[in-house]
Amino acid sequence: MPLDPKRVVADLEELRRLTSDVNGAQRVAWTPTWLKAQAWFESRLDGLPVERHYDAAGNLWVTLRGRSEKALLLGGHLDSVPNGGWLDGCLGVLTSLEVLRSIAEDFAGVPPVTIRLVDWADEEGARFGRSLFGSSAFAGTHTIAADRGRTDRDGTRLEDALRECGFDIDQIGDARKEQADAAAYLELHIEQGPVLEDLQLPLGVVLGTKGVERHAITFLGQEAHSGSTPMAVRRDALAAAAKLALEIRRIVGKHPDSVATMGSVKTFPGIVTAVVGRCETTLDMRDLDAAVLAQMFEEATTVSERFAAEESCSVTWSRIWSIEPVPFHPALIELCDEAIRETTFNTHRLPSGPLHDAAEVSRAGIPTVMMFTQSLAGLSHNRAEDTKKEHIELAVQAFHRLALKTMNWINDGQAA
Amino acid sequence: MPLDPKRVVADLEELRRLTSDVNGAQRVAWTPTWLKAQAWFESRLDGLPVERHYDAAGNLWVTLRGRSEKALLLGGHLDSVPNGGWLDGCLGVLTSLEVLRSIAEDFAGVPPVTIRLVDWADEEGARFGRSLFGSSAFAGTHTIAADRGRTDRDGTRLEDALRECGFDIDQIGDARKEQADAAAYLELHIEQGPVLEDLQLPLGVVLGTKGVERHAITFLGQEAHSGSTPMAVRRDALAAAAKLALEIRRIVGKHPDSVATMGSVKTFPGIVTAVVGRCETTLDMRDLDAAVLAQMFEEATTVSERFAAEESCSVTWSRIWSIEPVPFHPALIELCDEAIRETTFNTHRLPSGPLHDAAEVSRAGIPTVMMFTQSLAGLSHNRAEDTKKEHIELAVQAFHRLALKTMNWINDGQAA
Repeated sequence: MPLDPKRVVADLEELRRLTSDVNGAQRVAWTPTWLKAQAWFESRLDGLPVERHYDAAGNLWVTLRGRSEKALLLGGHLDSVPNGGWLDGCLGVLTSLEVLRSIAEDFAGVPPVTIRLVDWADEEGARFGRSLFGSSAFAGTHTIAADRGRTDRDGTRLEDALRECGFDIDQIGDARKEQADAAAYLELHIEQGPVLEDLQLPLGVVLGTKGVERHAITFLGQEAHSGSTPMAVRRDALAAAAKLALEIRRIVGKHPDSVATMGSVKTFPGIVTAVVGRCETTLDMRDLDAAVLAQMFEEATTVSERFAAEESCSVTWSRIWSIEPVPFHPALIELCDEAIRETTFNTHRLPSGPLHDAAEVSRAGIPTVMMFTQSLAGLSHNRAEDTKKEHIELAVQAFHRLALKTMNWINDGQAA
Repeated sequence: MPLDPKRVVADLEELRRLTSDVNGAQRVAWTPTWLKAQAWFESRLDGLPVERHYDAAGNLWVTLRGRSEKALLLGGHLDSVPNGGWLDGCLGVLTSLEVLRSIAEDFAGVPPVTIRLVDWADEEGARFGRSLFGSSAFAGTHTIAADRGRTDRDGTRLEDALRECGFDIDQIGDARKEQADAAAYLELHIEQGPVLEDLQLPLGVVLGTKGVERHAITFLGQEAHSGSTPMAVRRDALAAAAKLALEIRRIVGKHPDSVATMGSVKTFPGIVTAVVGRCETTLDMRDLDAAVLAQMFEEATTVSERFAAEESCSVTWSRIWSIEPVPFHPALIELCDEAIRETTFNTHRLPSGPLHDAAEVSRAGIPTVMMFTQSLAGLSHNRAEDTKKEHIELAVQAFHRLALKTMNWINDGQAA
């Protein structure tokens, strides 16, 4: 059967019907609706010359054996956030399925290299707060020690939720075995941002996932009466925080793709009649270049100390989380660029702010690239998430081209 | 008995022993501890040639009849906030008692004008959220309609709490009768701010109470993903609020006694990974000059709209509460100034940021002035509230002088 992009749209719509309610997609990992999505997906494999199995971390592998053991991996994730969209994650899985179908037919069931489709388990981390669960187990970057104690809102332990789905938390490291013979990994995803829409481009090449520095920053001043305390003697923790909220924009403005976000501000005592004595903020900084990220972090801490001093306050930083930037493979970036240009004439290269399973695969040393398709209004993680159907169809075509090019690239021994 | 400033300190200490716990003073109005404070205070009147009664709003009046019906009022309040200090309010009552005692002796029980001590009921509004309860009933500015439905944290209604203390909420307007023959009102209070301490002055003349403009200001932008949303397309509600938090300081900086406070900032969704889509803030602006206050309010609204536009946000203002400035009586300000200079050589004139019962008395058209004594570290409304004992003693002396001067001023017919 030749590549049928409309079938991907139809599959996505059917999955939406099966696993959404009026509030959006409900395919949260380790829940019955997610298992239902997987069962439906497995039923779509009937008649294809493939093997399938779940690895020790719950990732589903669908293998089309080729003449070479060397494997091209194509993937995505069926799980969603609660009240999620119809495309985030499953666009990658269902497009990979269509490409696999097409390749199986084109090569009469035996392509030159092995093709493996992977549905990563629990990309979102929506229930237990640990995103990239399955792909990090695959990459060997997952330490169970840090996540064993996780519970969901109802107090159910991650360990018990896994067991109910048939997995043993102490065995998830065995998913690393799936790395054997992996020669390249490709992933199609919606952008989840406004860049491609602003450029009026349906598709873009992803350069990598940005590194993240995520910190809690607390300014400590002196609570004081709003009526009796002259301006000159105040130690206003909010003023210091406000200066930082504005200055970080100048700091990131020096770098074209950097972003920094003060997403939370809490004031204490936080009443209308008191100068703010303590102000707790969060800062999330991202860039694809580790040196740029380190420089931004350095500048932000320096100015925060200056602002604290100006306001007779003190400031403390506490790292919440960080991850290094993960640049994708240069040769695969070029192939992805070619595939898009051959499909839609124009393309654009952009980093990904959000993390993806592809970052974990890349960290495992497997050549990796992602393709983005336009998101309408940059929305995702809610039921308003959408992409034009003609853009989805173009994405399927371009991703198919990229898979063929990468298969040749592997076959030519360039992946070594 | 001659004026004995040390007796005021001793009285204050005894009241503290009777009505405080380890967390501070607990003389919250309409509670047993407040009634205990009043009973103790009444016991201190034994042997004095005075009449006493509670008016319809719960204010306690102690009257020393003079040759003239014209009355000099001296006052304060025995009630405190929960976990309050040992001076806020009761310094005024107990100093007034000492001055009354001294005048009763000096004039052999019949001073030239009538002296009336008043203990205002529920100045703090700590339990039901309605401050200046008794003095506003006296002034006739209290509308029961607005406060009838008030309840405390346990759901007890204001009406029922009053009834338990022997008062009928529908009758509180009768307290206006106490205005008859009132010729002047004097009140001693701790500053509750750092100004006198910074000037190393024990005492100051209060020019009036500042007007207040208190508003809720909400900036509305667009929640967006912190990783995928480029800086240039963000509609960051926090950025607009941060600009206002800093700009209000420039606006009030044009006026020597103005203050403005952004006391509360709330961010929504308020998570580390999202640009702030909605930012709710509060702003409290104060000045003694109504024109200045109006100008600050005007400027603040104008710049808030500019900042909202700059950040592609909208802004809405909602008035929480406002009160006009209440300047005190010019002639009494001069007498207060003289009394302080005769006691401590140096003085200072300053407005009061916090409100006081004196503002309500002044609004009733009765010539009024207040005297402040230094607060250590500007602290009040907690158990750390303190003033040096020698400063309390100087305050008693100066307030006594002010009372004598005001008595003469009334007697000379200048109060007409």
